[in-house]
Amino acid sequence: MGKTVDVKNIGLRGVTVADTKVSFIDGEKGILIYRGYRIEDLAEKSTFPEVAYLLLQGNLPNKKQLAGFNEELLKAREIPDQIYEGMKQYPAEALTMDILQSSISILAMHDPELEDDTREANVRKATRLIARLPIIAAAWHRIRKGLAPLSSDDSLSHAANFLWLLHGETPSEEVARDLDICLVLHADHTFNASTFACREVVSTKAHIYAGVAAGVGALSGSLHGGANAKVMKTLLALEGENDIAGWVREKLDRHERIMGMGHAVYKTMDPRAIILKEMAQRLAKTTGMGKLVERSMQIEKTALEEFEKRGKSQIKPNVDFYSATVYHQMGIPLDLMTPIFAISRVAGWTTHIIEEKTGEAQEKPALYRPKAEYVGTYCGLMGCTYTPPS
Amino acid sequence: MGKTVDVKNIGLRGVTVADTKVSFIDGEKGILIYRGYRIEDLAEKSTFPEVAYLLLQGNLPNKKQLAGFNEELLKAREIPDQIYEGMKQYPAEALTMDILQSSISILAMHDPELEDDTREANVRKATRLIARLPIIAAAWHRIRKGLAPLSSDDSLSHAANFLWLLHGETPSEEVARDLDICLVLHADHTFNASTFACREVVSTKAHIYAGVAAGVGALSGSLHGGANAKVMKTLLALEGENDIAGWVREKLDRHERIMGMGHAVYKTMDPRAIILKEMAQRLAKTTGMGKLVERSMQIEKTALEEFEKRGKSQIKPNVDFYSATVYHQMGIPLDLMTPIFAISRVAGWTTHIIEEKTGEAQEKPALYRPKAEYVGTYCGLMGCTYTPPS
Repeated sequence: MGKTVDVKNIGLRGVTVADTKVSFIDGEKGILIYRGYRIEDLAEKSTFPEVAYLLLQGNLPNKKQLAGFNEELLKAREIPDQIYEGMKQYPAEALTMDILQSSISILAMHDPELEDDTREANVRKATRLIARLPIIAAAWHRIRKGLAPLSSDDSLSHAANFLWLLHGETPSEEVARDLDICLVLHADHTFNASTFACREVVSTKAHIYAGVAAGVGALSGSLHGGANAKVMKTLLALEGENDIAGWVREKLDRHERIMGMGHAVYKTMDPRAIILKEMAQRLAKTTGMGKLVERSMQIEKTALEEFEKRGKSQIKPNVDFYSATVYHQMGIPLDLMTPIFAISRVAGWTTHIIEEKTGEAQEKPALYRPKAEYVGTYCGLMGCTYTPPS
Repeated sequence: MGKTVDVKNIGLRGVTVADTKVSFIDGEKGILIYRGYRIEDLAEKSTFPEVAYLLLQGNLPNKKQLAGFNEELLKAREIPDQIYEGMKQYPAEALTMDILQSSISILAMHDPELEDDTREANVRKATRLIARLPIIAAAWHRIRKGLAPLSSDDSLSHAANFLWLLHGETPSEEVARDLDICLVLHADHTFNASTFACREVVSTKAHIYAGVAAGVGALSGSLHGGANAKVMKTLLALEGENDIAGWVREKLDRHERIMGMGHAVYKTMDPRAIILKEMAQRLAKTTGMGKLVERSMQIEKTALEEFEKRGKSQIKPNVDFYSATVYHQMGIPLDLMTPIFAISRVAGWTTHIIEEKTGEAQEKPALYRPKAEYVGTYCGLMGCTYTPPS
């Protein structure tokens, strides 16, 4: 309190603003942990609903708890008709992230537990949000193409049902499991810009939906969730390019960024990228998109060599670099890549919102209220004198 | 960058995170300045559209510029039909702040300039948002009561038109001007929680609507925009209470807060409260609600005496304390008090968003990305070992 600290103009980089029990990153060693568990271990052995439960509750579910949680997710797949009705009137070129954001506020209006701010009620609201964001994104994708939205298939898992709703085809078990792993990998990442926005908004005691809507807004920015689609655009634009290495070198000579390379926190390979790279290669065996994956790997290889030469060996592929090729191979269109990020990250957002609301990890003054230094006009102690316009 | 600073658990209080040219507060002296101009001077001599122009453009408009800006506001009063259609389907008990938030995302979908991120285009989008939030709030208020929304009266000012749309009666010039002054007083307040949320969201390059939606979410929290309605509830609950002084003392003895007293930044009387107190008294002469205003003043008097005795003389009435009685006298229902705050503050939010996007006041790394300290489970260097649920 009252402590005067000047961290001006660094975008809070390196500034520790809170305690958290949700997740941990060691950027030097390339370690990511959710609630104590290594991401590699979770990606190998758990499913997205288990990870969502782990995040929300702080511990892994036993079989019965997991069955109960999956049941809750199933039940919440029904969304208010009004959301479908609204979609029929939105312009077809509307951004899916805007659709998600407006739908979240509409879900708030229809939630009978909105005013109940207990941990238990907020976990139930979080569970409903986790269940519903994929339904909304897939329904919008159908409606904007002039197709009727499909009904959920209750025999399908969270990830498989999403692919079904999107494509109208039941995905293979392998592809469904791969998407499930992607959701596991993207579920949380400490105080990134969208998660911090969620926490900041609910620090005023705003409800969980208001927080998640802010998270969707922040994620929609091209510097945050928009990066995977940008990687994909680059890869597609390079189709037919024979000298990938030359392209990389020229780009670096011009001091341009290579999308999907480098991270604010990781100074080594992003542990999620390692898993996604393997997945992209494996998927290519079935999808026949080996050339695309090959191209990613050529870019990576040259870029790493060049960064090494240029004294920037800490720049490595991040999570977006290979998620792009993975999603593309699953038939996910460019402009749904960021929404899929949201569909996963909503587990982390809601967990952080609940942590902020309950004060489970820390006690702190009510709300985030930083200071700014005024560098504008100032005509003296009493301010400028206003004269009506003439 | 890379600077490691620990400001943990203080909610960023006293932490200077950025430069700004928009506004300035001296909490010790009770000074609030927008773009160089004292709030008292603006409240006395300017109108809300002039102040919105001042904020957005950085300078006061001349007559021609002001006429042009007012013309823009007039033109933007038409909103997409879909917003009215949606309202007819929302549950009547839906929160107006949620209606505003979902409508903002819907406005984004319909904005032909959405992708144009230049300063000029963003000022135009800001102008449309300023014009439209009151239209949306008033339309919702009519629709939830089963009434048809009214059409704007182009002969009326921004503030007068809002009261017309709300009540279906043209307000007196005095009342319209008083609301206009309220809008001037609430238009900006440096890096409060909602404004910081706006800036944080667009620091990812998200569009202006995503930022404003986050601001609405943060303002909806009871610790931020919800305070004026809480003041009013207290005042109404005290109707018929003869011993107001005793009630205040008992409350303070129980270490309870008195709503509308005290502020994170002001250590003296909030300059806005001084103006609103006078306005509340003046309005009472016409509304016949002198007793209500009297009650506010009794609470203030005893509270100030008691705070003095208790060594807390820095606690004074804040902006919410008298805005409550002012709005109530204008026939504004409790649950529209926070939305009216939003209708004004949107001028400040959009200005800050544009400042964040253009870097007019500062250069800083792309996005806000703080750190958190992990205080959760951690089973050793390699993390806990995951075992599937049993």
